[in-house]
Amino acid sequence: MTGAVAGIDIGGTNTKIGLVNAEGKIIARKTLSTPDYAQFIDYIEAIAGAVRELLASQSATLKAVGIGAASANYRTGCIEHAANLPWKGIEPICKELSDRLGVPVYLDNDANAAALGEFKYGVARGIEDMVMITLGTGVGGGVISHGKLIHGANSCGGEVGHLRIDYSDNARQCGCGSKGCLETYCSATGVVRTAKEMYKDSRQALTSLDIYNAACSGDQTAIEIFKTVGRQLGRAMALIIQITDPQAIVLFGGLAAANRFFMPSLTEEMDRNIMPVLRGKCKVLISTLNGADAAILGAAATIPANVSNN
Amino acid sequence: MTGAVAGIDIGGTNTKIGLVNAEGKIIARKTLSTPDYAQFIDYIEAIAGAVRELLASQSATLKAVGIGAASANYRTGCIEHAANLPWKGIEPICKELSDRLGVPVYLDNDANAAALGEFKYGVARGIEDMVMITLGTGVGGGVISHGKLIHGANSCGGEVGHLRIDYSDNARQCGCGSKGCLETYCSATGVVRTAKEMYKDSRQALTSLDIYNAACSGDQTAIEIFKTVGRQLGRAMALIIQITDPQAIVLFGGLAAANRFFMPSLTEEMDRNIMPVLRGKCKVLISTLNGADAAILGAAATIPANVSNN
Repeated sequence: MTGAVAGIDIGGTNTKIGLVNAEGKIIARKTLSTPDYAQFIDYIEAIAGAVRELLASQSATLKAVGIGAASANYRTGCIEHAANLPWKGIEPICKELSDRLGVPVYLDNDANAAALGEFKYGVARGIEDMVMITLGTGVGGGVISHGKLIHGANSCGGEVGHLRIDYSDNARQCGCGSKGCLETYCSATGVVRTAKEMYKDSRQALTSLDIYNAACSGDQTAIEIFKTVGRQLGRAMALIIQITDPQAIVLFGGLAAANRFFMPSLTEEMDRNIMPVLRGKCKVLISTLNGADAAILGAAATIPANVSNN
Repeated sequence: MTGAVAGIDIGGTNTKIGLVNAEGKIIARKTLSTPDYAQFIDYIEAIAGAVRELLASQSATLKAVGIGAASANYRTGCIEHAANLPWKGIEPICKELSDRLGVPVYLDNDANAAALGEFKYGVARGIEDMVMITLGTGVGGGVISHGKLIHGANSCGGEVGHLRIDYSDNARQCGCGSKGCLETYCSATGVVRTAKEMYKDSRQALTSLDIYNAACSGDQTAIEIFKTVGRQLGRAMALIIQITDPQAIVLFGGLAAANRFFMPSLTEEMDRNIMPVLRGKCKVLISTLNGADAAILGAAATIPANVSNN
C-alpha cells in the first residue's frame, strides 16, 4: 500500500480534493461543488467519502489531511465566519474530519497554504526564507522565515496586498477601507483601473486578460500599463525585503503570466528602494504550478513535514 | 554556586560585559575600552579574563556566553569586516571565546540582540510575535515571529530603518544610497533635519535633545516636529504590521523618550495605513531598560533558552 496525504482546497465555488504521494505528485483528485452542501455536517461527510474513494482507487493509506481555506484559523482548526461559504458560524473542520478519517488534520488560510506549497513542492522548494505573492482578483501572500510561516498575532501575517505604496493625495481607495494599498494597483481589478486611466478613448468591459493580449500584440499603452504594475509591485517587494530579507519571492496568479512585460520595471524599482547591500540578492521567481495543482499541493503542504514524511 | 550567563555588547567605544542570573538580573558588570585592543587575540584574552573575574566575584558558574555586535554573522559566529572596530577581517569570536571559557558562545547583530532582550527580559517578555525599533543615531530593528528572530537570507531581516515611507520628489537622500528611508526622518539626525526645515530662523548646532527640551517647554514648532516624527514612524509601523502582524512593537533609544509628543500622531497614522481588522490590535510599548542594561541583556538573550535555562 502506498502512503499518501490528502490536500483539500475549499473555495466558494469548488472544493478540490487530491491525494499527494511521497514524491509530491497528485495521484488522484476529485472536485465537489461547495454550495451544494447547505449543512456543514453533510459537507464533512461528502469530503470524508471522497477521500475514502480516492484512497480505494489507488490502494493507498492516508497519513494526514491538510486544508487550505479562506477564513481559516490555524490555531483552532476552525473555519470562522467565512464570507463566501455556506456555513456562517465557527466550524471545527479539523476535528470533524479527523474523527471520520482517523488521521491528523491541519488547516491554514489559502494564501499561507499557497506559500507552503511553493516552499514544499514548487519553484521555491527548500528555500527556507521565501515569500509568495498571489496576483489574482485581489493580492495575497505568505511569508516563510526559517522554514516556518509568519502567522502573526492575529493570523494576518503576510497580508501584503494591503501594504501602502502610495502616499500621494490621489492614492487609490481600497476595498479594505485604507488608501494606496498594493491591491488597488496590482490585482486584476487594479490593472483594469489603471487601464481605464491610461487609455485615452473610453473602452468598455476591459479585463486584465484583454490588456495582456493587447500587450502581446504590441499595444504600447498596454505595455506601459504593465510597466506601471512592475513599479508598484517593485515598491511593495522592496518593503518586504527590508523587513524579512527573503532568498526568493514567488509570484503566482493570472497576472504573473505577464511577467515579461513587468519584470524589468519591477526589478529596477525594487532595487532602487532597498539597501544597496541587498540589491540583486532576492530572486524573483514565477510559479510553475497550475492553479488546481497549486491549491491541492498548498493544502497538503500545511501538514508538518514530520507528519507527512515528505 | 549560582549559575549565570554572560552578555557581551561590543561597541566601537566600549565593550560591556555582564553576568545575568536565572531571574534575568545583571549581578556583575565590567566595561572594556574596545580601541585599546589593536590585536583581536588580545581583545579575546581581555574578555575571557573579565568574565572569569566577574564569575569569581559572585562565586558563579558560567553556562553560556551571548554576544551582540555590529557586523555579526550569527550563522558563522564571526565578526566580519566591522567598520567601527579595530580588527578588519573575519574574526571567529565565538570559537575563540568558547575555547577559552569552555561553554557555548552565541552571537547576533546588536539590533537583533536588542529585540531578543526585550522579548526575554523586557517589556515584551514572552510576546512571541513582536518587533523592536531602535531610534538612535540611526534606526534599526529586529522582528521576532513564533518566538524566533527573522534573520533572513542575508542576515538583513528587520532592517526597518531603510523602509521607504516617502515616494515624493523631495524624499530625503539616505546615507545607505536610497531615498525616503525611515531613518532619514526618525533618527536623531533625521529629527534635526526636520527641525532645520521647520524653524524659520536658522538655529545652529541644534540637537535632538534641544528639540525635545523645547517641546517640553511648550515650543509649538518643536511639538510639531515630534508630531511629524509620529506620522513617519506610524507609516513604517503600518508596513511592518501588514507583513508580520506583531502583538507588540517596542520602541527603544533616545527619541523614544519623546513618545508623549509623537504617540498620538503615530497611532493615528499607523491605524490609517493598515487593514481595519488590524486596527488597535498591535500594542506600542516603550522600552523600560536603560541603555547599558539593554545591551548586556540583549547580548545574553542571544543564548537559546534550552542552553541558558532562563
